[in-house]
Amino acid sequence: MKLTQTVQKGGCAAKVAATELRKILSQVRFPKSDPNLLVDGGLFDDAAIYKVSSDLALVQTLDFFTPIVDTPKLFGRIAAANSLSDVYAMGGEPKTAMAILAFPLATLENQVCIDVLQGASDVMSEAQVNFVGGHSIDDDTLKFGLSVTGYVHPDHVWSNAKAQVGDVLILTKPLGTGTVTAALKRQELSENEMEEVLNSMAQCNRVLDLLTPEEALGIHAATDITGFGLAGHSMQMAKASEKTLRFEMKKLPQFALAQVCLEKKCLTKAHRTNAEYTQNFLKVQSESENDRLILFDPQTSGGLLLSVAPEMAEAILRKLNKRFSRATQVGVVQPRSDFFAIID
Amino acid sequence: MKLTQTVQKGGCAAKVAATELRKILSQVRFPKSDPNLLVDGGLFDDAAIYKVSSDLALVQTLDFFTPIVDTPKLFGRIAAANSLSDVYAMGGEPKTAMAILAFPLATLENQVCIDVLQGASDVMSEAQVNFVGGHSIDDDTLKFGLSVTGYVHPDHVWSNAKAQVGDVLILTKPLGTGTVTAALKRQELSENEMEEVLNSMAQCNRVLDLLTPEEALGIHAATDITGFGLAGHSMQMAKASEKTLRFEMKKLPQFALAQVCLEKKCLTKAHRTNAEYTQNFLKVQSESENDRLILFDPQTSGGLLLSVAPEMAEAILRKLNKRFSRATQVGVVQPRSDFFAIID
Repeated sequence: MKLTQTVQKGGCAAKVAATELRKILSQVRFPKSDPNLLVDGGLFDDAAIYKVSSDLALVQTLDFFTPIVDTPKLFGRIAAANSLSDVYAMGGEPKTAMAILAFPLATLENQVCIDVLQGASDVMSEAQVNFVGGHSIDDDTLKFGLSVTGYVHPDHVWSNAKAQVGDVLILTKPLGTGTVTAALKRQELSENEMEEVLNSMAQCNRVLDLLTPEEALGIHAATDITGFGLAGHSMQMAKASEKTLRFEMKKLPQFALAQVCLEKKCLTKAHRTNAEYTQNFLKVQSESENDRLILFDPQTSGGLLLSVAPEMAEAILRKLNKRFSRATQVGVVQPRSDFFAIID
Repeated sequence: MKLTQTVQKGGCAAKVAATELRKILSQVRFPKSDPNLLVDGGLFDDAAIYKVSSDLALVQTLDFFTPIVDTPKLFGRIAAANSLSDVYAMGGEPKTAMAILAFPLATLENQVCIDVLQGASDVMSEAQVNFVGGHSIDDDTLKFGLSVTGYVHPDHVWSNAKAQVGDVLILTKPLGTGTVTAALKRQELSENEMEEVLNSMAQCNRVLDLLTPEEALGIHAATDITGFGLAGHSMQMAKASEKTLRFEMKKLPQFALAQVCLEKKCLTKAHRTNAEYTQNFLKVQSESENDRLILFDPQTSGGLLLSVAPEMAEAILRKLNKRFSRATQVGVVQPRSDFFAIID
């Protein structure tokens, strides 16, 4: 039984598209927020920041999806790492997590459910997160994820809006999970062959514990690269910060398999919608189709994109490399130009 | 288009059964909790309590389900009220909520989604809760709910474990949502005919703002009556408190339609599983089958069962009746006997 064959759309591909969602949300009158809500979850996607006191705020996020890999335990690990990532991307430390579980009791063995929960629990143990409950439902297809609450100092939130001119951009994980997992779903490769990709998706974006408090302050802005790909999430950060992010194509870390799978045209709907989403705001010098596609590749449990004070970038990268061997300097922040992102 | 006809199992009936879930969870090695986790979410069901400081703890809960009524806005209201209820049942005040939305884009119009979100937003506005984000997925059947975080003083948690001998038991809403919504799903009655039941399910279990701080301290224990019915949730409170709850059958408030629908044998699987769950711990004097069934009737967004200091019960009930017209004294707490609950 291969989990990816039990669902039509795997992982973030099952998301309601951003444009569709925006149309729907624009017609809802939402409740008025109180002044403690510092950052709104907005498009149903990022983490919200809710201030508790002058030195404590909650970071809250919620994510769940359908199987993106075949091994249940691995799916649980990846789903948990992916859910925790939004807290890390705000500079927060996750504290509690609740499970969201939709499980087809009639068609999957209980052992699948046990393994998914075990994979998630193992990640929570590593991340020192308390597992505080959740809700399960008998459903047609498996879905799993976490609702996570973390702590952050209200003055030290890594928002999207604080990238500064001259900052160095660091990406903590290689790109390419979208095309490689599409190949897995098409059964063009096995999990064994994509071990590097699986390990990367299963890894938490925990970076704060590697850094001194001073180094942590050197990170001005951050976002995690997920469904909208490097292009989409870079655009969001550039827009919020009113800057231009300038990348070097050849420095972007990619999984060895990514180009192989792109060659085989293992694509998802998101490759197209991410291209559409960013088309007016992105300048790509390369003429190569695969270079473009890797920019639009939707990541599941992708890396953090960090905007870092230049004088601290090398020291920070050295420490990140202890855990994230493929973390790389990929570009710089420039004054705002006609494009939000330029890829040389 | 009737929402209840788009799903096989409505509301809490779609839950993974408690016995099944317990079997699964017993085989998972969960992460170690830190000492701030005062109350564990345990069986995936109740709210967890996580201590932030000596005078503040977080109450966290998560709930979502399939449509239990046909009108989308009403479904959104009921789902939101139901999710918030677990925070109220711990003596907490909800502060933030994130949406869990599974929506069949191919088969339902966007307006359905807008209405569900609007219903939920209206309840959050009334409850003064911040809507801070969420996650949506394209799925075969509609599911909706909230992940809620509230505040509570760590010393004033209304746990299940603190019912005291002599306490008066107050139930804030009538019983019978299970059988009445089963009748709706079988199309044996219309939403117009069940207005009393719909209004009750759509009402928040917010009680603290009706009471003085002194009266609030007079509430020793509380639980909300949901999927396990009055029998199941009473048993859980009695067990945790090591007491016996003694009810008077004729005092239990019921919707006028409840007996009508039970007569028509509008039952759910939970009527049977709740009977099984409680059979060794429950003593029912009545010989009437329908009297028994109402005790096992699974509630969606049911009332709070409050265990109240006897000298304050009348004053508290008077205040509750301003908002909950059918709130009633239904029994008393006695020393533990052979049964956890006795219904005279």
